Formats: sequence, C-alpha cells, structure tokens
Amino acid sequence: MYRTHTCGELRLNDIGQEVTLSGWIQAIRNLGGMTFITLRDRYGLTQLVFDENTSNDLKQKVAMLGREYVIKVKGKVVERSSKNPKMPTGEIEIISSELSILNKSEIPPFTIEDDTDGGDELRMKYRYLDLRRNPVRRNLELRHKMSQEIRKFLDHAKFIEIETPYLVNSTPEGARDFLVPSRMNPGEFYALPQSPQTLKQLLMVSGFDRYFQIVKCFRDEDLRADRQPEFTQIDCEMSFVDQEDVLNMFEGLAKQLFYEIKGLNFKEDFPRINYNDAMTYYGSDKPDLRFDMRFTEITEIAKGKDFKVFDSVEYIGGMNAKNCAEYSRKQLDELTEFVQRPQVGAKGLVYVKYNIDGTFKSSVDKFYNQEDLKTWADLMHAEPGDLILILAGERNHTLNALNVLRLEMGDRLGLRDKDKFAPCWVVDFPLLEWDEEDKRFFAKHHPFTSPKIEDIALFESDPGKMRANAYDFVINGVEIGGGSIRIFNTELQHKMFEALGISKEEAQLKFGFLLNAFKFGAPPHGGIAFGLDRWCSVFGGSESIRDFIAFPKNNSGRDVMLDTPGKIDKKQLDELMLKIKE
Amino acid sequence: MYRTHTCGELRLNDIGQEVTLSGWIQAIRNLGGMTFITLRDRYGLTQLVFDENTSNDLKQKVAMLGREYVIKVKGKVVERSSKNPKMPTGEIEIISSELSILNKSEIPPFTIEDDTDGGDELRMKYRYLDLRRNPVRRNLELRHKMSQEIRKFLDHAKFIEIETPYLVNSTPEGARDFLVPSRMNPGEFYALPQSPQTLKQLLMVSGFDRYFQIVKCFRDEDLRADRQPEFTQIDCEMSFVDQEDVLNMFEGLAKQLFYEIKGLNFKEDFPRINYNDAMTYYGSDKPDLRFDMRFTEITEIAKGKDFKVFDSVEYIGGMNAKNCAEYSRKQLDELTEFVQRPQVGAKGLVYVKYNIDGTFKSSVDKFYNQEDLKTWADLMHAEPGDLILILAGERNHTLNALNVLRLEMGDRLGLRDKDKFAPCWVVDFPLLEWDEEDKRFFAKHHPFTSPKIEDIALFESDPGKMRANAYDFVINGVEIGGGSIRIFNTELQHKMFEALGISKEEAQLKFGFLLNAFKFGAPPHGGIAFGLDRWCSVFGGSESIRDFIAFPKNNSGRDVMLDTPGKIDKKQLDELMLKIKE
Repeated sequence: MYRTHTCGELRLNDIGQEVTLSGWIQAIRNLGGMTFITLRDRYGLTQLVFDENTSNDLKQKVAMLGREYVIKVKGKVVERSSKNPKMPTGEIEIISSELSILNKSEIPPFTIEDDTDGGDELRMKYRYLDLRRNPVRRNLELRHKMSQEIRKFLDHAKFIEIETPYLVNSTPEGARDFLVPSRMNPGEFYALPQSPQTLKQLLMVSGFDRYFQIVKCFRDEDLRADRQPEFTQIDCEMSFVDQEDVLNMFEGLAKQLFYEIKGLNFKEDFPRINYNDAMTYYGSDKPDLRFDMRFTEITEIAKGKDFKVFDSVEYIGGMNAKNCAEYSRKQLDELTEFVQRPQVGAKGLVYVKYNIDGTFKSSVDKFYNQEDLKTWADLMHAEPGDLILILAGERNHTLNALNVLRLEMGDRLGLRDKDKFAPCWVVDFPLLEWDEEDKRFFAKHHPFTSPKIEDIALFESDPGKMRANAYDFVINGVEIGGGSIRIFNTELQHKMFEALGISKEEAQLKFGFLLNAFKFGAPPHGGIAFGLDRWCSVFGGSESIRDFIAFPKNNSGRDVMLDTPGKIDKKQLDELMLKIKE
Repeated sequence: MYRTHTCGELRLNDIGQEVTLSGWIQAIRNLGGMTFITLRDRYGLTQLVFDENTSNDLKQKVAMLGREYVIKVKGKVVERSSKNPKMPTGEIEIISSELSILNKSEIPPFTIEDDTDGGDELRMKYRYLDLRRNPVRRNLELRHKMSQEIRKFLDHAKFIEIETPYLVNSTPEGARDFLVPSRMNPGEFYALPQSPQTLKQLLMVSGFDRYFQIVKCFRDEDLRADRQPEFTQIDCEMSFVDQEDVLNMFEGLAKQLFYEIKGLNFKEDFPRINYNDAMTYYGSDKPDLRFDMRFTEITEIAKGKDFKVFDSVEYIGGMNAKNCAEYSRKQLDELTEFVQRPQVGAKGLVYVKYNIDGTFKSSVDKFYNQEDLKTWADLMHAEPGDLILILAGERNHTLNALNVLRLEMGDRLGLRDKDKFAPCWVVDFPLLEWDEEDKRFFAKHHPFTSPKIEDIALFESDPGKMRANAYDFVINGVEIGGGSIRIFNTELQHKMFEALGISKEEAQLKFGFLLNAFKFGAPPHGGIAFGLDRWCSVFGGSESIRDFIAFPKNNSGRDVMLDTPGKIDKKQLDELMLKIKE
C-alpha cells in the first residue's frame, strides 16, 4: 500500500497516528542533525522530519534524495513546535521511520514553484512538469468543476447529452476544415467538425427536445494569439422555444456557475444591450461593462467652427475619463501615440480638460471657446476634474478606435478588475453583413439564423437592415457564447439563401441533408454554444485560454511536447493513396 | 409560447386546465364527427380531441393534417370516458379549441413506430427519423444517464476530468491511425488518438493523481460487424495504486451503474478468474458467466481405446448440457454442422447421451463401453437426462471451438437472458504473446504494462510465461473494459522493450516524450479504459453498439446520412500540398 493519507489531509487530531504518505519532494532543508522534507501531491504539502533519532541507514537514504524524487514514507504524526499557518497541514509534521525511493528524478529544467524561472517555450516542451505547478493545476481543477456543474445544471433541466460524430462531411461555409483521408475509401475524406451545428439541428428534427454536448471543435486557420486549432464548446439546442426561452435558460446556467464556481450571487437579470446600442455606446459587440465610460456623439455640434479636421468627417465622439483632468502632457502624448498605432489607426486625439476651477483647456482651443467646450462637457456628463477624450473620422472605424481607447483607459484607471464580473447579453444582431470585397451579403451568425418576424419584409427592400434572432453572451468584454433561433421553415430558408446569393442547387449540394430533414416536420428550435476554454479563462482571471488547456498548441498549431504535426512514413501515405507535392 | 406542458405530463388532477401543447402527430383517427389525434414529443403521448363542437374553421385545419406534422394546440384537459391504462397520460384528453400548424411533413419513408417497416439501410439514411422511434430514443437516454452517473461517481472519488488533445502524434504500435494533414505545416500530419494512453500517463507524471475522461478514440481499420471507426472510452488512470486498488475502485463504479441504471444491487464481490482458468474452463478470456457449462478435459482417459481420432490429438474435452439427453438426431446433426463451419473449424462432434434409465448412448459406442462413458459422465458431473458434447484437436483451437459451442448451447437453452447480468474480472493475463508469423513477442496489453514482480526473472528464461498486472472487466461474455498497472521504472521499461525486440533508439524515436517524462519522477500508476458504447449495449440488452450511437457509420466506415467520406475540391488538396495518386 502506497499511502494511508494524502499530503493534504493530516491535522492536529491525527496526532499519534502511524501513517504512510507518498508524493514528490518539493523541498529539502538540512539543519545540522535534522532534515526537513516537504512532500507534495495534488492535495497539498506535508512536512517530514528526520531528526537526531533517525537510524544511520535511513539517514543515508535521506542523503540521496533530490527535488522531485518520488518517495513513500512511513512515520508518526506529531504536533509542530513552530506551526505554519499558511499550510493547511501546518500544525503537524511526520517523524519518519521508513522511507522508500519509488522513483528518482533528474533536475527539472525549471523550478516547480508558483513563480517559476522557466520561459514559455521550455514550459510547453516539458508541459508535464509545468502541470505540476499549483497555478496550472488549479486552472484544470477549475475547468473540471465547470464541466461538472454545467452537466449537472443541464441534466437537471432535462437536456440530454448526445455525442455527435467527429468524422463528418466537409462544410463549405465559414472557416477551414481539417480533413481526414479515409483508408477504406481511397481518395475520399472526412472533415473534423467546426461545430456540431447541423447535427444538433437534426437532433431537434428527431424530437430530442433539449440537447447538449461538451465537445471538441476544430478549425484549421491561422491562429491569433488566443485561438487554438481544437477548442471546446458547450453546445446546446432546444425545441419549441423563442429567444426569450433560450436567454432565460442559459442565464440560469450562467448564474449557477457564478454561484458555484465564483461564489457570486447574481440576483438581478443580466443587462441586455441591443447590437446597435453596443456599437454606438461602446464601439464593440462585446462591451466590457465593468465600467461605464460610454461614448457620446458630438458630430453635429462640433462641426462648423472652422476646425477642418472635424468639418470633413462622418463621426465625432468621445468619452469622459473621470478625475483625469490632471493628466500630464506626457500622459496625453502616450494616449495619442496609442490611438495612432496602425492597429488602432486614429489620426489624432483631441482632449478637453475640465479643470477643477471650472475652466476648460483643450487641444482645440483655437477653434472652440469655453462655451463650446462646456456644451460638450455637459453632453458627456463631465464635471470639474474630468478629462474628455475625442476621436473623429469614418463612423465605424472611429467607434472601433474609441473602443480600444476606452479599454486602455479602463486598464489605466484600474477599472478592469479581474475579480469583478459584468455579464450581459447582446441581442438584435444584424442578420446579414455586407462584404465590400465580394460585393455580397454574408450571414452574420450563420445561414440558419432566423430574422425577426417584423423584419422579414425587408428581405425585398433593405436586407442589410434586418435584425436576427441572434444573441451573444459576454462577460467583461469577452464573448463567452452565442446563438440564435433557427429558421425551421423551408420557404424562409430559401429566402435566406437567396439573400446570400446561394442558388437552390448550391444549397442542396451544401446543406442537402439538413434541408431534406426539414421536410419531415422540423420543430421551431434554437440554441447557443459557449466557449468552455474562454469561460474558464475569464473565471480564472487569465487573458489566455491556453492556461486552461492541459496540452495546448502554439501559434503555429504545434504541440512542442508531442512534436506534432510531423512527417509520416511513405508507406502510410501510400495506403491513403496520397502524395505530397514538392 | 409554444407549450405550457409536455406531451407526457398531464394527469387526472390537471382536469379543467387550459393548456398548450406542441409536438408531432403520431396518429389521426377520424370517427364520424370526432377526430382523435395522438400528439407526441420526447416525453410522451397525449390524446387530442376535436369533437362535434369544433368550429368549421378548426375542422378544416384538422382535415389538412398528416402524420409527423408539427402542431401547436390549445385546449382543455378533460377526463377520458374510455381510459387507456397503457399510456401514462391515458386518463385524460384535450378538447382542442385552437390549432396552428408549425410545420408540415412529407410522408416518412418508414413508419415512426416501435416496430418499424423500414430496413436497416433506409433507417440509416434517414437516421434523424429513426431517432424519433421510442426504442432508439431510449437507447440514447440510457447512454446519457450512464455518462452522467459515471461522472458523478468519479468526481465524487476525486477523479479530475481532463480533456486531452485530438490532434496528436502518430503512434507506431497497434491498429492504424487516422491522419490529419496540417495546412499551417505543409507535408506534416497530426494523428487522431487511438486512445489517450500516453497522455494519461503523462498526467500521472504531472501529479494529477486521479484522471478520467469520457473521450472519443479513433481507429482506421477494417470494421468487423460491431466496430466503429470512432468510439467512446471511459478512460481512467490513478497514481500510487496497485492492481487491487484499481479493481476495487472500478468494481465500485460498476456496482453503482448496475444499481442506478439497472436497479440491481450486487452485494458480493465480482468473481475474479485468472486468464489460464478462463481459457481452460470457458475457452475464452471473456467468459459468459450467466451459465456454467464449464469444460472438462478427458484427454488422458479417452486415449488408448483404438479410437484413432482421439488417439492422435493434443486435447479432448467437453461440456455437460443439462437435460438434453432427448436431443433428436436432427438436433445433433445441426450441432455437428454448427461446429464444422469454417469459422469454428471443428472436425466433428462426439456426443454421449446419459439416458434417464442410467444407460449411455454415444456416437463412439464402438470404442467406449458403458463404464468408460460413465467415467466421462462422472468427471463432467453429468446425471441421467444430460447430454455430453465433446470436441477434440489442437488444444487452443479446440478450446476456442468449445467456447463457440458453449455459447450456442447457452442460446438454445435460454441461458443467456439479456436481463440477467454476470460481471467478472479476468486477471493475470500473459505479459507477452508470441507471433508465429513475425517470430517475435508482442505486448498482450501494451508495452507499458508491468509484469508481476515475482515473474520478472522469467524475462531471461521464459518470457512467454510471464504474467502481467493486467485485467479485463467482462459482463455476459462481452469485454467491457481493460487495463493494467504500468511500468514506471526506466530499467524495467527497457527490459520490456528488449523482450519486444525494440531497440533503445527505436524506443526513443517512438515513445521518446513518455520515456523522457519518466526521468523526472514518475509515480507508480495504473488504470483502465471501458468501452462506453459496448457497456451501453450490454445494459440495453442489444448485440450492437450502433444502436447506442446517435449517428453511427456502416461497415465501410461511411455515414450514409451525411454522405461522408467524400471527394473534396482540388483547391482544398492544393492548400494541403497533397495529390491523390491515380
């Protein structure tokens, strides 16, 4: 038997017991005649003592030990003379009488500590050692708990978890599929699913009523900083529901998770912001509501004062940074440079300081008098001591730049506390999105998303104005999930395809099995999918989803520990009837 | 709002309520002035009535309805005059006052009934309609419940569910990998995992202590009747355990599932049979213990009586079929033909009837007298009225044929009741298996399986005799799971590789990252993996795992509903830098 207890469980009332523990050596301290060893396992740390009464035989063994050795130790639980209140087992220690070395360890390439000396690359290569570190282990424990709570909630709400296949057909829409050649069907390929979207809709046609799955999805696309080629979705679908039903159900799930995982009790409904308002006031369809700092448009009143820059633009607007009137020249220059970076792309930054004495000082004093600036300040609810920041230009472009500036100000002002949570729903997304390059509409969500009933007439007159029964769930400016009520009526679906420029033949080719299924009694249905990796990272207070994935891939889609992808034998290629092009 | 209640929940005490229901039309019966409609959803059936008071408008709508139409109906709950005790809602019906057709349905290609008229192929093509049928839906509900209970048990036992990647490296051992070309790394490939074996061992090195995952695994190999290219494992691993710990933990899981899913309370320990006994007495490493009918060897006593067939063989043995002495010539001929089929391959069948009057009648009366046959009968615990069936030949071949015959007799005698469950552990598997063709040993379980400590010396003298710390879990003759205690010591691992004829260089190439990980303090560990599909099928009383998979593939690895695998665009191939060989 390797252990009677784990390294995290012994307490004062275990004193006197003979116990056996197994684990890794976290630290060895040699104090003259005494040796103290900190033994670690997943459950905690326990101090072992080899004192002056230790036999020579045992002392020799102890002398051979090193960090990360795996040992089994037998001994007696005693009360510590100098207790360690930071350790849950800090009131006891083990006077050890027997020791076996279960396995040796080479010196790890970085220290197994909360703050390690290992760089990113080294830690990824030795990910199995990185996973020994408390913060990383705790991330995966959080993820486990999330999954369990999600399943508990959905099971209780009568959702059935149904596993959909991973070897599916290649879909022509959206991001790129990973393809899988079939040995039994040479020259033919499966695809790995980008999401089980069509399959879950088929399950609704089958009458499963409430479906969910925590499922891996795959996208073979260039990886931005926080994307992974394989990621995990909480995929859900319900029948006989409208948008309100879906939002209420999953607001319930989110509240449950906030409560069980974060100990937060959200009693009020989550705010719902429509897409247009989100864009107008925050320049983003995933606003960070931990702080206000909404945008105010001043296009009309700021024009006609001979300031050429403003006179020629589509949009002028800004935000009020509370208590920032004292910003220095240097700080303001920094902000200007910040918004002028190519990835933000603003031409310049106009500021208006609302001084404590009630006067204004701005970068456009030549064109606007105190009264003009007071009007702006009033519109922006600014008070003496505040700083108004203004950008101007093409509307969408400027709103986007304002969004980046707002988040930067939030960071600078400490308003984006990772222990504070501001969830919201963004609703009423546009159904279609015009693509300037292709000169055609694309589905903003996906081609099965239903338009608002009252907007259907716009199919003929102004499709770009149509709103969808589509919604996103956002926490702290991060999109956690999104979904829609689907089209379940064949005629409406055909109208949608028409608007997207997809012919009947093409639709049949691409989505045939789903359209066929819809002929046999499709119920009204809708759903949502959440990104589990991202939800975990937001709950865990991290910027990166990688920290919540046991074995993530790097930006080139490589797993440097497994050293994959890699070359394969010609024999394997031959069996697949494939050749690599030179 | 689509419904106030589901179709499965209204009862006598709901009488008088105005309700709204939505669902599919299961049946329409028109009785003169009255129309009865059975409305179906996942939760049940409810009878709708359109009686003589129905408005003309509504009557016209009702006349348009057909099977599988999706409707929403409003009405009043009333008590039925002729109650249907077979239906949970059979005491009430709905007098309907409003009706909307939510969706029409074409006539389905087969009837949506428990016993359908649709053939296999048609039902697979329209799998979404097949899934509407009660027996199929119930299979997936069973599977959902299994998964939930498994997670509940393991979470409670402190196992952490950790998602391992699906895009891994190609492993050189065992069955064939599905390969996935990488677009970002042209000419390089990922593989889909055949199991997360090495990754879960790395998680033990990481100190996760107890890991599990319900996870898809992939094998691109020729599909036997009951295999799927993608299948689901309950994959588990524990640290600081020996075989006893693992068996006890997962016997606990199995008992919990028997209790929660089947309502069976197994109080006794499951039988444990060692591999040699299983082969000797049942000719199988997965014996069906719902019935006894063990084999008795009579090689020594049956020889030397001038019966040439017996005198020349390695093994003679048989079993006692209780109360079958009255078997007719025709029945015995059938059995003879059965064992002579090429897939069984016995030369012939010897029978001995132990007549009620105490005399014997056998197919070898020429060579054996009554006394000889009495000796056989006594060894086989036969009594008057029984039938002894004997096969002879090469030992392993004959034991295998006896196994097939035993199962056939079990079927014929009704001893393989699908509602009866006989679980067992098979233990002490051989470590190595000799391959006559390749003239070398293969790992019976896998190359990381540890030998029994007391057998390690046999590495030098007689490797084929070594027993492994490996175990299988079997229910009703079906292998539900298997696992082993792993080698965690580098030297022992090298000995194992040596026995398998794998050089140090080859080992490093193939298993390098695991061997490297083991250098940094690997704990003793072991685990098990269960086949979820198969466990569900055994609990569901079905022979086929396909019945428990929402969207299974056929024997050619095709999903005929999705029509995959399929051809892909040349453009897609170009992006992957691949060409199909002509």
